[in-house]
Amino acid sequence: MNDAETIRYHAAHNGRPAELDLLDQTKLPGTLTRLVCTTVDQTHDAIQRLVVRGAPAIGIAAAYGVTLTPVSVNADASLPEAQTRYRQTIDHLATSRPTAVNLFWALDRMRAIVDGFSGQVAELRERLVAEAVRIHDDDRQMCRSIGRHGATLLADCQRVMTHCNAGALATSMWGTALAPIYHLQESGHTLQVFADETRPLLQGARLTAWELHQAGIPVTVCTDSMSGSLMRQGLVDAVIVGADRIAANGDVANKIGTYPLAVLAKHHNLPFYVAAPTNTFDPELESGDLIPIEQRDGDEVSYPCGTDSPRQTPEGVAVVNPAFDVTPADLVTALVTEKGVIPGPNTEKVLAHLRA
Amino acid sequence: MNDAETIRYHAAHNGRPAELDLLDQTKLPGTLTRLVCTTVDQTHDAIQRLVVRGAPAIGIAAAYGVTLTPVSVNADASLPEAQTRYRQTIDHLATSRPTAVNLFWALDRMRAIVDGFSGQVAELRERLVAEAVRIHDDDRQMCRSIGRHGATLLADCQRVMTHCNAGALATSMWGTALAPIYHLQESGHTLQVFADETRPLLQGARLTAWELHQAGIPVTVCTDSMSGSLMRQGLVDAVIVGADRIAANGDVANKIGTYPLAVLAKHHNLPFYVAAPTNTFDPELESGDLIPIEQRDGDEVSYPCGTDSPRQTPEGVAVVNPAFDVTPADLVTALVTEKGVIPGPNTEKVLAHLRA
Repeated sequence: MNDAETIRYHAAHNGRPAELDLLDQTKLPGTLTRLVCTTVDQTHDAIQRLVVRGAPAIGIAAAYGVTLTPVSVNADASLPEAQTRYRQTIDHLATSRPTAVNLFWALDRMRAIVDGFSGQVAELRERLVAEAVRIHDDDRQMCRSIGRHGATLLADCQRVMTHCNAGALATSMWGTALAPIYHLQESGHTLQVFADETRPLLQGARLTAWELHQAGIPVTVCTDSMSGSLMRQGLVDAVIVGADRIAANGDVANKIGTYPLAVLAKHHNLPFYVAAPTNTFDPELESGDLIPIEQRDGDEVSYPCGTDSPRQTPEGVAVVNPAFDVTPADLVTALVTEKGVIPGPNTEKVLAHLRA
Repeated sequence: MNDAETIRYHAAHNGRPAELDLLDQTKLPGTLTRLVCTTVDQTHDAIQRLVVRGAPAIGIAAAYGVTLTPVSVNADASLPEAQTRYRQTIDHLATSRPTAVNLFWALDRMRAIVDGFSGQVAELRERLVAEAVRIHDDDRQMCRSIGRHGATLLADCQRVMTHCNAGALATSMWGTALAPIYHLQESGHTLQVFADETRPLLQGARLTAWELHQAGIPVTVCTDSMSGSLMRQGLVDAVIVGADRIAANGDVANKIGTYPLAVLAKHHNLPFYVAAPTNTFDPELESGDLIPIEQRDGDEVSYPCGTDSPRQTPEGVAVVNPAFDVTPADLVTALVTEKGVIPGPNTEKVLAHLRA
């Protein structure tokens, strides 16, 4: 068993409760430890605290979280009551984080199972587990497909830059932005990667660097402030990032710091790619400015190593901490999904791609 | 006496050695403490470890450091021997940091005193102290003048962004980039300031936020990765930064992260100002690409809160840590010196300004 697997699930068995077994990403790279959730509240908390993070992984974890709803599965259990409980769980988990649309997409799939079901409560639980497993399996396929399509864009590159973590730790395997890099490695072409550290929570330094290093891919960490200088020195051939939500017009919400990278890439005539599954798209939203941006606690900025370590901003000074920014589509060279590549994305191309 | 004064000097007196008394900026904002240097080696170490930092302040500290050279001042002391010792000190202090040219400029002024002197050794020491005090005094004048000239550029602004610390803590008073902000405050126009935290060493979060807050100027800290998003939201009217070295053509070396800010400012049609005294200019260097860039220890990136706190990059993963980047002159709306403003800087304008 791979202790570094992002998400594992053990179905209820012989009276043992179901377990959602997560790699605790808040503890990396120092400690490889897992957090086992057996309740919905634990799952909600794990998503909110970023024990599990990354748009696709949040969706998978939330889907499994639904199956942890305490529901009697006796033969005489009331189905309407069970359905109400499952819907309450779905509504509750939907409040765990606001920006990544995969969360709502996965919960909608679970809700459709609940709503459309007639039969025994025990069977509903099995159907929900099966749906969550399917979401998980689909994600693996998605990673492979994004890897294959994205590899065509990076085939001529030697050195790419990425931001935050859109890798194996953000999904079930390979990730989104990192999938083409893993794909190319399998085919014998190993890229060098610059990982922006990604303040405030250092997902690049802690997670991307860790998973690429584990995989034998050479990775160099830089602070977010160094990316421009590295590009200016000609050390970067392309930028590739993931996404938390993509509007109908191709605008991309992703980890704070993505937008400046896109502006810098344009200034240096470098391609700027965004890799995400189609379930990260929100065709209901006309443009990125409509995407809700999560504002997180300023302590994440003030205490770069957690509140056990010294505060680095003066007491009484204001701090802002938006978790995401929006990159307008005109700065995106191409979007990559499991279905293929959308070069120069706009509303027409995005909607056609989603329909295809 | 103001405990927060960046640099104080107490001349040798009644057998007590001279003291270079520095605010220890590595300990801010948590602790207000001073480090007293009585030897050249302590001064070298204080500059290298950033106890004192900021191009002008480094020059002042180094000038005072020369006066700490152990030289016999008896009436029969050998002048050539004393001169040799002072020159050794000057050469040694010149190795403390490579990028800020003010260091070399100040040491050259001290060297000229040593070289041109004839008389008693005790008198040479007094002349050196007087020259260091003059450098310190000139710096105060410089801050006032930059404040006055820069204020004309920021007069219509409400919200400005700055990077690193080019304030009172980087100079003898007021600073360079922050001088216009203090000047405007004196005249009743209080700006709001966004301080980039400035990874890896957080001079923005720790120092700029601290000194502006002390001065009653509203300041908000953001991570370096948030600047682009704040500009895109229309929350920034102008960017103003300091400099560590400016080439003849107006290219600017300044704290890593300055260049991306300049690119972002251009993308958002915002003015990008650089404030620095004329002793920060290096007219010998044709362009910024010739400026030596200090590469510092990667541990500054790996341990955001110092090596007492947890490591945030995986063991064995490469880290880059250039302390500065170069912003080409064509991204600089105007340079501001104690002599005035150079709009749209180029070689012709810069050299004419320095000659004026």
